[in-house]
Amino acid sequence: MIQTDTIIALATPSGMGAISVIRLSGPKAIDLVNAHFKSRIKEKDLTKVKSHTIHLGNIIDGNRIIDEVLVSVFKNPHSYTGENVVEINCHGSIYIQQEIIQLFLQNGCRTADNGEFTLRAFTNGKMDLTQAEAVADLIASDSKASHQIALQQMRGGFSSEIANLREQLLNFASLIELELDFSEEDVEFADRTQFRELVNKLSNILKRLIDSFALGNVFKNGIPVAIVGEPNVGKSTLLNSLLNEERAIVSDIAGTTRDAIEDEIAINGVSFRFIDTAGIRETEDVVESIGIQKTFEKIEQAQLVIQLLNASNLVDNDKMLKQVQHDVKELQEKYPNKRILTLLNKYDTISDDEKKQLNVILSEGEESFIPISAKTRVGIDTLIDELTKLVNIGALSNNQTIVSNNRHFEALTNALKAIKEVENGMEMDISSDLLAIDIRQALFHLGEITGSVTTDDLLGNIFANFCIGK
Amino acid sequence: MIQTDTIIALATPSGMGAISVIRLSGPKAIDLVNAHFKSRIKEKDLTKVKSHTIHLGNIIDGNRIIDEVLVSVFKNPHSYTGENVVEINCHGSIYIQQEIIQLFLQNGCRTADNGEFTLRAFTNGKMDLTQAEAVADLIASDSKASHQIALQQMRGGFSSEIANLREQLLNFASLIELELDFSEEDVEFADRTQFRELVNKLSNILKRLIDSFALGNVFKNGIPVAIVGEPNVGKSTLLNSLLNEERAIVSDIAGTTRDAIEDEIAINGVSFRFIDTAGIRETEDVVESIGIQKTFEKIEQAQLVIQLLNASNLVDNDKMLKQVQHDVKELQEKYPNKRILTLLNKYDTISDDEKKQLNVILSEGEESFIPISAKTRVGIDTLIDELTKLVNIGALSNNQTIVSNNRHFEALTNALKAIKEVENGMEMDISSDLLAIDIRQALFHLGEITGSVTTDDLLGNIFANFCIGK
Repeated sequence: MIQTDTIIALATPSGMGAISVIRLSGPKAIDLVNAHFKSRIKEKDLTKVKSHTIHLGNIIDGNRIIDEVLVSVFKNPHSYTGENVVEINCHGSIYIQQEIIQLFLQNGCRTADNGEFTLRAFTNGKMDLTQAEAVADLIASDSKASHQIALQQMRGGFSSEIANLREQLLNFASLIELELDFSEEDVEFADRTQFRELVNKLSNILKRLIDSFALGNVFKNGIPVAIVGEPNVGKSTLLNSLLNEERAIVSDIAGTTRDAIEDEIAINGVSFRFIDTAGIRETEDVVESIGIQKTFEKIEQAQLVIQLLNASNLVDNDKMLKQVQHDVKELQEKYPNKRILTLLNKYDTISDDEKKQLNVILSEGEESFIPISAKTRVGIDTLIDELTKLVNIGALSNNQTIVSNNRHFEALTNALKAIKEVENGMEMDISSDLLAIDIRQALFHLGEITGSVTTDDLLGNIFANFCIGK
Repeated sequence: MIQTDTIIALATPSGMGAISVIRLSGPKAIDLVNAHFKSRIKEKDLTKVKSHTIHLGNIIDGNRIIDEVLVSVFKNPHSYTGENVVEINCHGSIYIQQEIIQLFLQNGCRTADNGEFTLRAFTNGKMDLTQAEAVADLIASDSKASHQIALQQMRGGFSSEIANLREQLLNFASLIELELDFSEEDVEFADRTQFRELVNKLSNILKRLIDSFALGNVFKNGIPVAIVGEPNVGKSTLLNSLLNEERAIVSDIAGTTRDAIEDEIAINGVSFRFIDTAGIRETEDVVESIGIQKTFEKIEQAQLVIQLLNASNLVDNDKMLKQVQHDVKELQEKYPNKRILTLLNKYDTISDDEKKQLNVILSEGEESFIPISAKTRVGIDTLIDELTKLVNIGALSNNQTIVSNNRHFEALTNALKAIKEVENGMEMDISSDLLAIDIRQALFHLGEITGSVTTDDLLGNIFANFCIGK
């Protein structure tokens, strides 16, 4: 599929900045810009300059100067897309951006679709599909972990290994299909021992990659942590204390329900999404019980539950203490697989005697309580340790291959299923024609990962999620 | 003032986009990037590459890859700032931007101040002060007119002419000061006729530039148009009709008072700011009279007043008709210098008989009324003509020099005042020493325009208004 049209888009974020970059790609990119470019000092023909060079001049529409710009020229195939590419570095006024883009739209360009530059890079063999997908992940990366996974994937990641094994499998497939042509003669072109080894190897690799997805998903999307706590128990202070600990990116994401606000904090390079929930106390009140229902739904989604309590409320309040112990026990019974941390906040506001008294009572139960003071930062390190324990951060620094993309997970799972069929077939010694069908199925799913097998729907789906200009 | 430190900043708008550009400038810019750059294909030493070339590779921190980037190298003095400049074209993730900037901040760079790149360009003689100021105007330009004025100014504009004349004046100044050394001997080194010609020429040029400011200000900031009209009289429909006429940039600017909303519409490349006001009917009501007071304040600021009336309300309503005629007359008497347009909106909704009847009555007064229908676009062309007449748009296409900067206006006015003093002094045949003082004063103010005379305060003021990264 050779592209004959030249596309244009703003590549930098929209809005006003010092400079903006407008990108053109396609067979006529250099010609088109050359026709509307006047070098400031001496006459210059952009079609004759070397690739990877930069030229100062004006973008002109007839006699009218639109802007003084820097033009970067990249010649086919040595460019991002593999086509001729020109990047126009203009002054960052929205008016100027629009004028330049309009000029080229009226003179032979069309607006690029979302991700179309990267789609062309894929089509022209500059990268495989997982690498193209990694570009979008890279742009969206907001923590060290998500960034590193995307970068690794963009640099080849697991897809080259898959592509290599698929090639070998394809080889066997053709030998086995050749056997079919000679089925009367009962020959075996494909060495069954070698083939079994290959299938075995593939199966192991696929399993490892599929297993890595749980971690990859966590690195990419952050780890959901539900905070169960009354509004005034010190949740904001706690989050701010965690924030101070790290140079972090914070955002407020309006949740799906009116009352759910999520805070995202990066700790040791991994994002944690803190989900605020209402309390979980049993109640007869209908409205309140709806709130509690919601709390349980959020806890369901979380990997860790933090129960935040106000220590000063518990002092000399046996009834409430009992209630709390009961709540914690109930939570643990309800979610035996979730880590539940109970934090006693405002621990600094109670006297030493009260601390002793509280500890005695709490130690009678089976549950452990961590005393903290979000304000004075006591106990915050313990909390960070607990959070960090949830993730195998070591996997990142070991350069272990981690799958973080849903589509890859699905294709890998399908490929493993097909490989298993092949393995089963061989064990049951099924006929070559049936085996060939199973192998084809495995080849198809393996090809989906790297993009050697694609459909327009699949590509459309992938690149629709890109931003324009990439 | 030679800069010894290397500065860094994000040059593209903040936020997520396909790509971002990070800019470094200073003696160590190339060395610093080279130390953290690894070419993808073969080893490359950025300190040895040609100026204006682009290089693909990774930004690395030790063994850790931060991003795959394109690096553009500009060598002193052939760069925007006149120093060594490197632009790093990275993936547009905020995380990646921060990581790269942090890397260089920890390795010898400091964050650039607002406009510091352009300040360095000025300091290094790459542009004079008015050109540097034009860069900020260019980035902020949002209409054809403001864009064109900024562009003209950036390309030299009037400052080279001023600089040239100032040079000549400086020449005369030294001759006249030389005369002072020989004052006993009563010699005249400076040819008084030539000097008079120069002063005359300067005075004329300054006058012309000062006069152009009225227009320049209009082009830069838009033309304020007050719309006097009741809420339901069709103001929004009118503005939408004007909008449809043009490919325009619209914005809602919350006014200084709660109830004032401004709409900005570009017509024929010039911005018009439509200011909504309440009615102006006389009233006993205190609250209402405050509203009327505000209306008058807004009319005061406007260049054109549009009184928007509902034609259908006037039919068969002699009392209201009389009131309207009275209002219009009063407005015209109150603001004899402002153009006042009275529009009869919803003219399409009244019958032909009613139109005739209305015209007869209205023609009895001295005021002219323009029948329009904002909805069916009748009369909109007439309105656009009237708006366009307010501005000498021709001045733009004639490439006439137009001053649009308050600071320039002030400096030009001061320079003209000083030049007038010189002229007066010569007419009164004052002594050379007094004349020399007046000339020094004029030289000072002329120098302020081009930046050959600057103070840190002045520069600080100018560049503080720039965005970071420019």
